[in-house]
Amino acid sequence: MKQDLDRLMQERGLDAMWITGPANHNPAMVYFTGVANITRADLIKKQGEPPVLFHYPMEREEAARTGLRCRNLSEFNPEEILKEAGGNAARAGAIRMARIFREMGIRGRVAIGGNVELSSMYAMLAALPSQAPDIQLVSEGEDPVLMRARSTKSPDEIDRIRSIGKVSTAVIGETAEFLSSHSARGEVLVGRGGKTLTIGEVKAFIRRALAGHGAEAPEGTIFAQGRDAAIPHSTGTDAEPVCMGKTLVFDLFPCEMGGGYFYDVTRTWCMGYAPEEVEDLHHQVLLAYADAEERIRAGMRANEIQPAVCALFESKGHPTIRSDPKTERGYVHLIGHGLGLNVHESPSFLFAESNRDVLQTGAVFTIEPGLYYPERGMGVRLENTVWIRPDGAVEVVAPYPLNLVLPVRGGSRRRAARQQKTSARGKRARAAGRVKKPAARTRKKAR
Amino acid sequence: MKQDLDRLMQERGLDAMWITGPANHNPAMVYFTGVANITRADLIKKQGEPPVLFHYPMEREEAARTGLRCRNLSEFNPEEILKEAGGNAARAGAIRMARIFREMGIRGRVAIGGNVELSSMYAMLAALPSQAPDIQLVSEGEDPVLMRARSTKSPDEIDRIRSIGKVSTAVIGETAEFLSSHSARGEVLVGRGGKTLTIGEVKAFIRRALAGHGAEAPEGTIFAQGRDAAIPHSTGTDAEPVCMGKTLVFDLFPCEMGGGYFYDVTRTWCMGYAPEEVEDLHHQVLLAYADAEERIRAGMRANEIQPAVCALFESKGHPTIRSDPKTERGYVHLIGHGLGLNVHESPSFLFAESNRDVLQTGAVFTIEPGLYYPERGMGVRLENTVWIRPDGAVEVVAPYPLNLVLPVRGGSRRRAARQQKTSARGKRARAAGRVKKPAARTRKKAR
Repeated sequence: MKQDLDRLMQERGLDAMWITGPANHNPAMVYFTGVANITRADLIKKQGEPPVLFHYPMEREEAARTGLRCRNLSEFNPEEILKEAGGNAARAGAIRMARIFREMGIRGRVAIGGNVELSSMYAMLAALPSQAPDIQLVSEGEDPVLMRARSTKSPDEIDRIRSIGKVSTAVIGETAEFLSSHSARGEVLVGRGGKTLTIGEVKAFIRRALAGHGAEAPEGTIFAQGRDAAIPHSTGTDAEPVCMGKTLVFDLFPCEMGGGYFYDVTRTWCMGYAPEEVEDLHHQVLLAYADAEERIRAGMRANEIQPAVCALFESKGHPTIRSDPKTERGYVHLIGHGLGLNVHESPSFLFAESNRDVLQTGAVFTIEPGLYYPERGMGVRLENTVWIRPDGAVEVVAPYPLNLVLPVRGGSRRRAARQQKTSARGKRARAAGRVKKPAARTRKKAR
Repeated sequence: MKQDLDRLMQERGLDAMWITGPANHNPAMVYFTGVANITRADLIKKQGEPPVLFHYPMEREEAARTGLRCRNLSEFNPEEILKEAGGNAARAGAIRMARIFREMGIRGRVAIGGNVELSSMYAMLAALPSQAPDIQLVSEGEDPVLMRARSTKSPDEIDRIRSIGKVSTAVIGETAEFLSSHSARGEVLVGRGGKTLTIGEVKAFIRRALAGHGAEAPEGTIFAQGRDAAIPHSTGTDAEPVCMGKTLVFDLFPCEMGGGYFYDVTRTWCMGYAPEEVEDLHHQVLLAYADAEERIRAGMRANEIQPAVCALFESKGHPTIRSDPKTERGYVHLIGHGLGLNVHESPSFLFAESNRDVLQTGAVFTIEPGLYYPERGMGVRLENTVWIRPDGAVEVVAPYPLNLVLPVRGGSRRRAARQQKTSARGKRARAAGRVKKPAARTRKKAR
């Protein structure tokens, strides 16, 4: 949490932190400023002191709205500095930073962060040592102070993650309704006018729904069917028609407009009916999800979860990246990842012994087991974002049912028969309280 | 253009370029890959050879779809490298990069680019020299080879910019219709149910419209009224009602979904009527726009435009940042900026002598004069994105009328009188072919 920063900086011997870049889609900056329409600024936090935001004159009002202490960069005589730098913008930037550090009484170790374009920033960083010889930019390695602080969330951060979580589940619900408003024509979904529904149209629906809720998906959205669903990072093929009985992996990871907090949730659906082998996969993934969620205890090492998930899947006969690190079938990724202003952040679930991350109270992360068989044209992933409450309980931040089958109009008897055949398993899953009872419409169809 | 890269690299003595980061919202990478769902990759372009994309195993299909030569990073034995690096991820990254450079026969000067988070990247860069002593990372300063190549566009890039330009003007048109579908109640706009229309609701409309067209606005959208309109980077105040007769600055700069090509366009509107002093500002900004567009010749220095615009505004009695570099009234920003995969890129219109940018054929940039008077609660900016065609002509990429007044139902006689009073100026502007005739509905109202 932010309140840990000064202690962490002291422990690591950091005199200051220097965050640079815009105040949107830039987690390190947004952590302090909130999302703001600031195209480029420098934020300096000296150990034991509140951060100061150095902004350009045109962005003074947006800077003031952050509530931070602000300094207008026009106070630093940009024209004079550019002259001193012989017209070299990188050197001018370095001279200005040196003056800022001097004025704030900063010397010694300074950690650096922020999303920037390397080509210009590298030039400025290369020019800095000669301008600020008493500043040592610190290479923090894989565990920067800021990521450490951000790896546990304050109550207001949980509120914001829950709020984008509710947007996410609302969009999932609206998408499910949209899909179910279509009818089956043979093995393909069609709209009222008889037009085939494509993956691309579903994606367009999702985009509009997100925008309507004031959210965005800067890292994309996965809505992938069949073989695409079996390749975890495939986003789906726009031109493909939405088919009956094929796995649809819907992985939604939107953030607050402007690059604020993220949420991350995945559901796997089959339209109309699920083939038995897909039901099997779904059931096993559900078990793995429940097993992982139940294993988690506040204070445990994060690297303990992945081997347990691999063991479970291996016991069911699936290859995993533990049994074969190069496998592209079976269980091929990590069980989860921390989440906040980045869609992937600390804690890490890497099973390496070198991963020292601990699942602390206030940690927010995903649990997302999956099974993938590209050659059989099917993949299943189920994902929730959870957090560890102050009382140690693991809570799904924004719950949503994990049902596999979405009803459509005009499911054939053959499909209904298949559904009945697998209904025993459905009952077991429902008994475990993880799958909602199908809606009345579905049950009628299944009779 | 991309075809200039090898020549530019030879001129600057670059053996290779190394672009890193994701293949979305990362212009340097997207220039080669197109927008792709790749979370992190390294692209190496050796001088005289096609680029090679080094990707993670999970993203193999997305990598293959770029059409580039691809290498799967799993070939580099990540587990063994991590062991060699003593579990230090930054060092492991440096070892892998050193192997890649060695395998490709690259030694010497390597330019670096790409949007990345500095805190981890700085650690990796700091570890690189000891792993790859024969590689010299090059600090390219303010004119990187890639930006130089990107500063002129190929025909297919122009097509893509035009396509997002048409989305932009469609959204502007839909927003104008949305505003005009409201009625005046006193000085405030209301919807059919009598509910006051707020700036925030207009922004939500704009977001949904953009999403419907498959575009996004990662850097935000400005829809700012009155005093906000007079602060160029203010995005507007959501809770404020949309008022009659106040300046509304609508600056839209969306990009293709996933961070592709941008467009940038600004219109200033008054609902129902325009006060005379606003009409004056609008007219003067229109003149400055026309003057700037007419000055542009292929081959001229880009720094010649800004002083001419300042001179024009100063002759009308406005302060400018030339007459007073600290002014926040009058003309307070540059006349334009290059545009492409970044909303701001080369050519630069800085009036410094050190700015050597030339307006070449194939260049795409904005022309956006504006006048701002915060203390009088009004600001006007007009902006188009233009390009210099191969025949030397300057063409607006996606034209849209520059009208000031948008009609609403129930404008009072007082307003109609004001409109008539200023109609002589309106006629002059129309004669100059820059303002469309008002729609029939408006003309009826003005009678």
